Amino acid sequence: MTDDGYQAFAAEREALNDLVLEHANLEIKRFFSLDSQVYREGALPARTKEILGLVASLVLRCDDCVSYHLGRCRDEGVSTPELVDALGLGLVVGGSITIPHLRRAMKTWMELMQGGD
Amino acid sequence: MTDDGYQAFAAEREALNDLVLEHANLEIKRFFSLDSQVYREGALPARTKEILGLVASLVLRCDDCVSYHLGRCRDEGVSTPELVDALGLGLVVGGSITIPHLRRAMKTWMELMQGGD
Amino acid sequence: MTDDGYQAFAAEREALNDLVLEHANLEIKRFFSLDSQVYREGALPARTKEILGLVASLVLRCDDCVSYHLGRCRDEGVSTPELVDALGLGLVVGGSITIPHLRRAMKTWMELMQGGD
Amino acid sequence: MTDDGYQAFAAEREALNDLVLEHANLEIKRFFSLDSQVYREGALPARTKEILGLVASLVLRCDDCVSYHLGRCRDEGVSTPELVDALGLGLVVGGSITIPHLRRAMKTWMELMQGGD
Amino acid sequence: MTDDGYQAFAAEREALNDLVLEHANLEIKRFFSLDSQVYREGALPARTKEILGLVASLVLRCDDCVSYHLGRCRDEGVSTPELVDALGLGLVVGGSITIPHLRRAMKTWMELMQGGD
Amino acid sequence: MTDDGYQAFAAEREALNDLVLEHANLEIKRFFSLDSQVYREGALPARTKEILGLVASLVLRCDDCVSYHLGRCRDEGVSTPELVDALGLGLVVGGSITIPHLRRAMKTWMELMQGGD
Repeated sequence: MTDDGYQAFAAEREALNDLVLEHANLEIKRFFSLDSQVYREGALPARTKEILGLVASLVLRCDDCVSYHLGRCRDEGVSTPELVDALGLGLVVGGSITIPHLRRAMKTWMELMQGGD
Repeated sequence: MTDDGYQAFAAEREALNDLVLEHANLEIKRFFSLDSQVYREGALPARTKEILGLVASLVLRCDDCVSYHLGRCRDEGVSTPELVDALGLGLVVGGSITIPHLRRAMKTWMELMQGGD
Repeated sequence: MTDDGYQAFAAEREALNDLVLEHANLEIKRFFSLDSQVYREGALPARTKEILGLVASLVLRCDDCVSYHLGRCRDEGVSTPELVDALGLGLVVGGSITIPHLRRAMKTWMELMQGGD
Repeated sequence: MTDDGYQAFAAEREALNDLVLEHANLEIKRFFSLDSQVYREGALPARTKEILGLVASLVLRCDDCVSYHLGRCRDEGVSTPELVDALGLGLVVGGSITIPHLRRAMKTWMELMQGGD
Repeated sequence: MTDDGYQAFAAEREALNDLVLEHANLEIKRFFSLDSQVYREGALPARTKEILGLVASLVLRCDDCVSYHLGRCRDEGVSTPELVDALGLGLVVGGSITIPHLRRAMKTWMELMQGGD
Repeated sequence: MTDDGYQAFAAEREALNDLVLEHANLEIKRFFSLDSQVYREGALPARTKEILGLVASLVLRCDDCVSYHLGRCRDEGVSTPELVDALGLGLVVGGSITIPHLRRAMKTWMELMQGGD
């Protein structure tokens, strides 16, 4: 994520997703569709799935993915203690190498909690 | 995990954890303790945390970690459709490179569902 | 891959893929379908795509994935010097941590070249 | 890659490579030499090798490496449909965690196709 | 690390660590404490441990972690030839995919050696 | 590493390295040579370099690489407390996902300390 905060990240993400889909082949389009489907309510609720997406993104150390799922966790009404619980679990699984991403995640979450969108 | 199934895996895991702790320094002991604490009920229920541990293990492609969390998911009463939902999400996040681990996870889960312990 | 060679690997892979698909949700089925589609001839020939799959598998250090793509490279008529070129490139990209996988890849390739199937 | 586009990236890459080689020991110098050699025409053509380098870089999620190989793919005359085919394959292998890198790759490729150098 | 150099990095790191610890649960606090303890003199001297932290950070490709350990290596009196030896070893283990991080590491080290703090 | 212990591992490693070098191109041969050179005494002593190789192997989660460097650490006279210190550091950097490798490392080290070769 850029230093310009969540809103700038979300705008660039959307613009570049449009660019990808404009030039994508069928397989890329299908993958993007699948990437939406797995977060929809199924046997597990959407809320749990966003927390799963967040922790997977943290242990794989992808700042953009973490930022995206933080926004979605906010939309799903995840509380700060729940979020901290999830991040702490990811930290122990992924080790100290995830700490820079944890730092940036906490900064983005605070921004989102303060009405940043 | 060895091909001898879940029970052999769990027995070897316990024996080797004992070996590690016998020779461990204070930091390793503290890490092992922390590794138990993050899965205990907190702001998130233990059941959700085990699913988080499972998906994190799948995307990081660790068979032993997947097997361990499958056993714990069974203990927490996770249903097969919930498990499949979680594995499908991990597959999309982590890509086809996780498929060999997904295959072995499904085999272990079926063993656990059939009373293997 | 087990030590029983390529044929045992391929048989177990097929049996476990069947198990996965028997219990899969729609997303997992779609992913498996997509995973076949991206290796079909498109703008790039299937042969090149299998070499791409092989090198991606080597740098991500997945023995089963390497074995699978070695079998497919053999089917597509990739020569040993071409294969060695691809593995050498993967070795330099992925570093010495890939060497154990390179060793097993070479063993499997030799088995495949000697008519093992 | 910085947000200043491909040209700024290429200039900084060259300046810092000079800095590394100025202070490098023999092993680092030999590695850098080897890193050039594996992309030269051998049993596989240089064009295929650049596509291999690109896909390996995408699945390992290295933006700078992706940008470098995009520039080389352009030099080798790789077409946009071929590039999209390669990126789609990498996306399926590496999963949704590669999407932020895919987005930036597409942006850089469009810049290169429009004469950015 | 941002392009503003080591000092800006160190300041932001400290500010965000404070933010993390302000909102952290007990597990995160314990992890942060453990993360300090493992670098203290034990059976291995602190100096060796910082070089270990540096090489682990390089092969795991974490710029912020590399920058932090470069600062600590400087504090522990690691010489440039020792540092180059460690980076060269990490390069061979981790492969060419680490080169962008090696480039930035060398830039930061030169800044630290010239009195940047 | 197979379950047959260090000696079986070392024998298979040597046999397969021979197979690789028999079929290798010039780049692979040069990489293997470089992979020996970086562990020779330089600005850092060989002993420190083997500990670096061990920790890098642990955080990258490569059992064969860990086993190899454990053998070399034994040759270089690394003590058990030093080894435990290094493993504990790697555990904190790499997280709980490294624990299965730590377990197997401890088993191999105990075998080596009891005269297994």
